[in-house]
Amino acid sequence: MIREATGEDWPLLWPIFQPIVEAGDTYAYDPATTYEQGRVLWLDKSRQTFLFEDAGEVLGTYYIKTNQDGPGDHVCNCGYMVPDQARGRGIARQMCEHSQIIAQEMGYRAMQFNFVASSNVGAVVLWQKLGFDTVGLLPGAFRHPSQGYVDALVMYKSLNSINKGVLNV
Amino acid sequence: MIREATGEDWPLLWPIFQPIVEAGDTYAYDPATTYEQGRVLWLDKSRQTFLFEDAGEVLGTYYIKTNQDGPGDHVCNCGYMVPDQARGRGIARQMCEHSQIIAQEMGYRAMQFNFVASSNVGAVVLWQKLGFDTVGLLPGAFRHPSQGYVDALVMYKSLNSINKGVLNV
Repeated sequence: MIREATGEDWPLLWPIFQPIVEAGDTYAYDPATTYEQGRVLWLDKSRQTFLFEDAGEVLGTYYIKTNQDGPGDHVCNCGYMVPDQARGRGIARQMCEHSQIIAQEMGYRAMQFNFVASSNVGAVVLWQKLGFDTVGLLPGAFRHPSQGYVDALVMYKSLNSINKGVLNV
Repeated sequence: MIREATGEDWPLLWPIFQPIVEAGDTYAYDPATTYEQGRVLWLDKSRQTFLFEDAGEVLGTYYIKTNQDGPGDHVCNCGYMVPDQARGRGIARQMCEHSQIIAQEMGYRAMQFNFVASSNVGAVVLWQKLGFDTVGLLPGAFRHPSQGYVDALVMYKSLNSINKGVLNV
């Protein structure tokens, strides 16, 4: 149900990506991001992008990429999107669990979320349940469209990498 | 003594940039970054880049850019470099103070450093002196070439922007 997405899948992902980005209450993307810019952000700039399919319907997508280059390249970053109509079915959880396995296979030692709006309580609670610690609090760093400046969280999880040591110096 | 750098200044900045990046103990850049890649990272991807000159000699450089797009675009990020032979002369301090003025002029409300190696004690102490708070601690996120995995800090300073309100929703 979760498979890798290619450039050809962008028409399937855009209807998920666009409303979430336009709402401007969860992701640090320009709400006016265009179709082509979105493809670059979500597909081209990722290391790998996945989609969640059920009976031929795309109900979610996520990307995984290296969070920092050089001395930081053993930590990955992921972003997940589920459309409104598919919420509450555990799809984000399944994608996050899937991404941790992929991350381990890729040799990452940890996963970091750089910019979780504190107002996005559903996400914060889910990431906590899945073992992510809040390791940073960025005061007023997220400009919520209705709530104004809210804090953003940095969340982090060490992975018991099956490839532990691959990236050791 | 501090002026804007252009693409034509890269030959002057590369001798500062290259050894610092190659050492791999402070910046999250690939230590093998090439001349052309460095130009993209330090000049093209910044919003503005500056250099510190004294008697025709370039003794430092910094960039300023927007740290997150969309709902995060009121916070900027900076990076500073001073070559070994010019350390201890207050150049990093002067560049950081300069960057805060520039940031305010650009309308940013805060400045964030995303990835300060905790082993880089000189930098950590200087940023603290200049009013930056440690708002995040990323466990083992920086792979130091001799010390192994060390923590990275997220540091943050709210700016009393002279343009406060410009970016208000």
